[in-house]
Amino acid sequence: MKITCSKNDLVKGVNIVNKAIPSKTTMTILQCILITAYNGVITLTSNDTELGIDTIIPGNIEEEGVVAIDAKLISDIVRKLPDNTVRMETDENFMTKLTCENSKFNLVGRSGDDFPYPDDIEKNDYITISQYTLKEVIRQTIFSTADNENNKIMTGELFEIKGDTMKIVSLDGHRISIRNIELRQSYPDRKVIVPGKTLSEIEKILSGEIERTVDIFFTDNNAVFEFDNTIVTTRLIEGEYFDIDRMMSDEYETKMVIEKKDLMDSIERAILLVKENDKKPVIFSISQDLLEIKINSTIGSLNEDISIEKEGFDLMIGFNPKFILDALRVIEDEKISMYFMNSKAPCFIKDDGGRYIYLVLPVNFATVS
Amino acid sequence: MKITCSKNDLVKGVNIVNKAIPSKTTMTILQCILITAYNGVITLTSNDTELGIDTIIPGNIEEEGVVAIDAKLISDIVRKLPDNTVRMETDENFMTKLTCENSKFNLVGRSGDDFPYPDDIEKNDYITISQYTLKEVIRQTIFSTADNENNKIMTGELFEIKGDTMKIVSLDGHRISIRNIELRQSYPDRKVIVPGKTLSEIEKILSGEIERTVDIFFTDNNAVFEFDNTIVTTRLIEGEYFDIDRMMSDEYETKMVIEKKDLMDSIERAILLVKENDKKPVIFSISQDLLEIKINSTIGSLNEDISIEKEGFDLMIGFNPKFILDALRVIEDEKISMYFMNSKAPCFIKDDGGRYIYLVLPVNFATVS
Repeated sequence: MKITCSKNDLVKGVNIVNKAIPSKTTMTILQCILITAYNGVITLTSNDTELGIDTIIPGNIEEEGVVAIDAKLISDIVRKLPDNTVRMETDENFMTKLTCENSKFNLVGRSGDDFPYPDDIEKNDYITISQYTLKEVIRQTIFSTADNENNKIMTGELFEIKGDTMKIVSLDGHRISIRNIELRQSYPDRKVIVPGKTLSEIEKILSGEIERTVDIFFTDNNAVFEFDNTIVTTRLIEGEYFDIDRMMSDEYETKMVIEKKDLMDSIERAILLVKENDKKPVIFSISQDLLEIKINSTIGSLNEDISIEKEGFDLMIGFNPKFILDALRVIEDEKISMYFMNSKAPCFIKDDGGRYIYLVLPVNFATVS
Repeated sequence: MKITCSKNDLVKGVNIVNKAIPSKTTMTILQCILITAYNGVITLTSNDTELGIDTIIPGNIEEEGVVAIDAKLISDIVRKLPDNTVRMETDENFMTKLTCENSKFNLVGRSGDDFPYPDDIEKNDYITISQYTLKEVIRQTIFSTADNENNKIMTGELFEIKGDTMKIVSLDGHRISIRNIELRQSYPDRKVIVPGKTLSEIEKILSGEIERTVDIFFTDNNAVFEFDNTIVTTRLIEGEYFDIDRMMSDEYETKMVIEKKDLMDSIERAILLVKENDKKPVIFSISQDLLEIKINSTIGSLNEDISIEKEGFDLMIGFNPKFILDALRVIEDEKISMYFMNSKAPCFIKDDGGRYIYLVLPVNFATVS
C-alpha cells in the first residue's frame, strides 16, 4: 500500500474510528485501525465486535493495499505531525513507513487478515433525520439506560418508528425518558433496541449540524448510521422492549409549574449533602405557590423555598435528587410542568406538545423528618 | 460566630486554603478549613502539617468565634451558592447555619480545638520579589525535583540568596535545573531547601501578576510567603544541599544552536515510540549544520533531520527524551544553545546571560543502532 493524504484529514478520520477501539480486549487486532486503499478510496475501519466504524478520508492511492496499525500509536503520531502531506508506504511484512516533512517513522503493522469486518448490510428501507436531532435526542435520553448487564434490554434504547414520528425511550427501573421526534415523511413501522454504549459513541461522532443529515438503516440484527463520510454499524439488542404505554398516565392530583433553573440550582445544592452510597432523598413539600425543598443527611441539612404555580392538592414526596437532576439538565424549556398523583406514584415531567416525557419514581421518606 | 461575606470572596478564599488540605490523612481535623473571626478579621486556615495557609477574606463580624468545617463540603457548597451575601452562624455545638438567598444549610462543624495552627514565625529579614517571577521560577525548575522520598533533599529546591541575586536549583540525580533571578536590592546571604510539594501549591495560588509582590521570610525551620491577603508557611528541609558549582563547567567540545520548537516537536514525536518503563534513548547525531534525531523501539523507529549551527566536533549522544523535553518546555528563548563534552559527559542547555542552566546526563546507547 502506498498512499498520501493531508495530516488534518488523517487526524479527523482517526478520531472518528477511535470511538470503536475497545479500551480492554484480549484480541489485539481490535486495538488496531485497519487502513484500506482500494478502488480509489482510502478507508479507516475499527470494530469492537458490537460497534463497527468505517470512515473515508480524501487522499491519493499510488498502490492499493491494506494494513492494520495499533490505534493508540497511530493516533498519537498523526496528532503530533506537522500540518502537511502524510505519506504511508507498507512493505511485504507490513512495516509501514510514515513520512511527513522531515519526520520518518517506521511502524510495525499487521496484515489485518484477522480483522473482523463489520457485517455487510442489505440496505433497503431507511429513515433520514438531521444530525442535530439525532445527537440531541441521544443526549436527552442516554442517561437513563442501565449500566448493568443483568437486564440487557435496559442497557439499550428503543427506537420506534410509527408513520412520521420516531419515539426514543430509555429506562433503568427507576425512571423512564421518552422523546418524540417528527420525521420529514412517513416510514414503515419499526421497533428496534440499539445498545446504549454504541449510541454514546455515535453521539460523539455526529457533527450536530442541523443541515447535515444521517440515514439510519435497520436490519434484523443491525442498525447502520450513515453520515458525512462515515458508516457506523451496530448490533441490535434482541428481545421485546417494555410496554411503555401501560406505564403512562395523563391523570394527576397535583400539578406544579416551576422555573427549571431554580429547581435545578436547588437540587444541585441538595445533592452536595448526599455522600456516595448514602441514599438520602430530597423532599418536595408542595403547597400553594411554594415548593419547599428539604434534605437531611449525616453531614447537614438544607432547606430552600421556590415559588411555583400549583394546581390540585398539597403534596409531600421524596426523590433520588440525581434522577430529577438528570432530567432537568436535558430539558430545553425554561419553565417546566411536573405532574403527581400521590407520594407513592411516579412523577411526570412533560411538555404540552408531547415532545418529551420524563417519569421518575418517588422514594420512601418515612424515616426522615 | 456570626459573619457575613460575599459568596465570591468566600469561594476565592476557600480555593486558596484548599491547597493545603491533604488528600489522605488519618487526622480528620486536617481535612477541615478553620474559619476564625476575631478583631474584625475573618481568616480561613488550612494546614497539612508541612504546609499551612492563612487567607483573610473581607466581611462583617457580628459575633466573634471559630469553627472548623469539612473542606470538601464547604467548598462544594459555596461554589453552588447564588452570587450574593453569605451568612454563617454557629451555635454552641458548632452546628453551622449557612444561608444565602433562599438556601438554608445546616452543617456539622467542629470546635477546631485540635486544629494544628501553623507555627508563629518571627519575621525579621525578608526578600521581596514579583509574584510573576516567583511563579515562573517555580514552574521552570519544579519538574526536576525527585518524587521519591529516599533522598529527602532531592524532593526540595535550593533557594540561595547572595547579594542581589537568588539562585533556585532542583535536581533528581539525572538532571539539574538552575535559575538565577536578580533581586531589587541586596540581602544577607541565605541558603534554604524548600519542599517541592509546597512550592507546587504556592505556584498555583500566586496570581502571576508582575506588579504584585510576595515577601519571603526565612527562619531556621520555616519559610513564609506573604502576598495579597494570604500567608503560606512551609517547613524547610533540613540538611546541606548538593555542591552544584562542582558539577558545572564552561568547557565544551561541541556546541549546537537550534530552534527550540523544531527540537521540541521532534522529541515529542520520538517519545511516542517509547512505551512506559521502556527506557529507549533518543540519539542525537550532530554533524555540520545538521542534527539527526533517531529513536528505535519495539513498536517502530523515527528519523528526523533538523538544521543547526554547530561549533566543534561531530558527536553522537543519547538521552532520555523526557529529560530534554522537560527542559525545553520551560525555556523562554526561541533559539537555544546546547554544549557537549563527549557522549558520556553531561549536556548543558544554557543562555549567555546566565539566567538559566539545564544539565542533563546522557544515557548509554551502545545497544541500539
